[in-house]
Amino acid sequence: MRPKIYIFGDSITEESFGDGGWGASLAHHFSRTVDVVLRGYSGYNTRWALKVLDKAFPAADGGDAPLAITVFFGANDACLPDRCSAFQHVPLHEYRQNLHSIISIFKKQWPKTQILLISPPPIDEDARLKFPYVENTMGMAERTNEAAGAYAKACVSVAAECGIPAIDLWTKMQHYPGWKNACLSDGLHLAHTGNKIVFEEVIMKLREVGLSLESLPVDLPLIGDIDPSNPLKSFEN
Amino acid sequence: MRPKIYIFGDSITEESFGDGGWGASLAHHFSRTVDVVLRGYSGYNTRWALKVLDKAFPAADGGDAPLAITVFFGANDACLPDRCSAFQHVPLHEYRQNLHSIISIFKKQWPKTQILLISPPPIDEDARLKFPYVENTMGMAERTNEAAGAYAKACVSVAAECGIPAIDLWTKMQHYPGWKNACLSDGLHLAHTGNKIVFEEVIMKLREVGLSLESLPVDLPLIGDIDPSNPLKSFEN
Repeated sequence: MRPKIYIFGDSITEESFGDGGWGASLAHHFSRTVDVVLRGYSGYNTRWALKVLDKAFPAADGGDAPLAITVFFGANDACLPDRCSAFQHVPLHEYRQNLHSIISIFKKQWPKTQILLISPPPIDEDARLKFPYVENTMGMAERTNEAAGAYAKACVSVAAECGIPAIDLWTKMQHYPGWKNACLSDGLHLAHTGNKIVFEEVIMKLREVGLSLESLPVDLPLIGDIDPSNPLKSFEN
Repeated sequence: MRPKIYIFGDSITEESFGDGGWGASLAHHFSRTVDVVLRGYSGYNTRWALKVLDKAFPAADGGDAPLAITVFFGANDACLPDRCSAFQHVPLHEYRQNLHSIISIFKKQWPKTQILLISPPPIDEDARLKFPYVENTMGMAERTNEAAGAYAKACVSVAAECGIPAIDLWTKMQHYPGWKNACLSDGLHLAHTGNKIVFEEVIMKLREVGLSLESLPVDLPLIGDIDPSNPLKSFEN
């Protein structure tokens, strides 16, 4: 039975099977080895994620433990508490605590599963004013890059405290020249290069914990391994 | 627990999570309702598909029956028996019989699962000579459009005999102006428009058997349904 990798997060995960999306790229990369399973919930913060964890990941799922889970929250937690998306805001100390809780629930359910935290991306505040998700009469962006940075830093430090890997997307993306347009489509969600960065970082971190195309078994014969003079031999036993 | 749709087939299925691929589009479309699970095996014909069916779809998978399975074979069965890819060829009568066997195995395992046959696409023979998969010293394409058409016709008639839906991709694609370049990338595999056609046809056929975004339940609250003045209310019970 083919093993699974879950990708768990907010809209940046939910939309990751769109054109050029990092989730689809991951599924394509592991097309003969792993089922990449989408658990993305647009608008969710870590507080709501905790509320749905038992439904999104039923303990009685019957299957084996997944190989890995990416946990990619913070972009909504980091909405400012006094701006138009305040209902999604989660205070920084609670965000930290919620990530700890999510990790410990997963670790209890599946002790051998690799958990990979992904920080929120940087924010382009001008673009956030140009592409509002809800009515914004204040003339100020509902998210700032500074706030996203604080949540990203917290995410990375929670990972370190738990001894698990993290991707500091906030820092990584800002190293990319012209990141606001190359990496982001509306100041928050991912454009082509942003998706490529997430995909490549996830692949690299998975490789570092032993999960790669070289190490994972292909469950059924590859066409290149089938003997043209006796194809059915590959399908014996 | 979120229901599944399996997509089962050859390389045209295996590669369907690449950029703009029909499998990724399907997963994106159903991102909050269905897990789209990839079971694509490059180079496989129906004879080999039958050999691996019990491993690709373990009866003891623990999960519920999938909502649907797409069965998309024939492009390799239709390789000509006297050309360079002869080892993949399956005679037309056996192709028919193998499709019947695959359908009856699925129907026995999961009586309520919707099975959807997809015919092989048309072939652009010039492109097949330009982009060989194996050494081709004969100067003749290993697949012809005429042969693909015969297998497509057989696929559609098997579906009718079994009372299940089918997509006649061979006919459908040839109605598209400039189909050789618009629909195909190398005379066989799908280019952007080809992927779009498969995605739209699959969505339409699923809708006809009652599987659509309107009829399938979303398993967790959508952001648009969450009350900003009391978000946690949506997560009670």
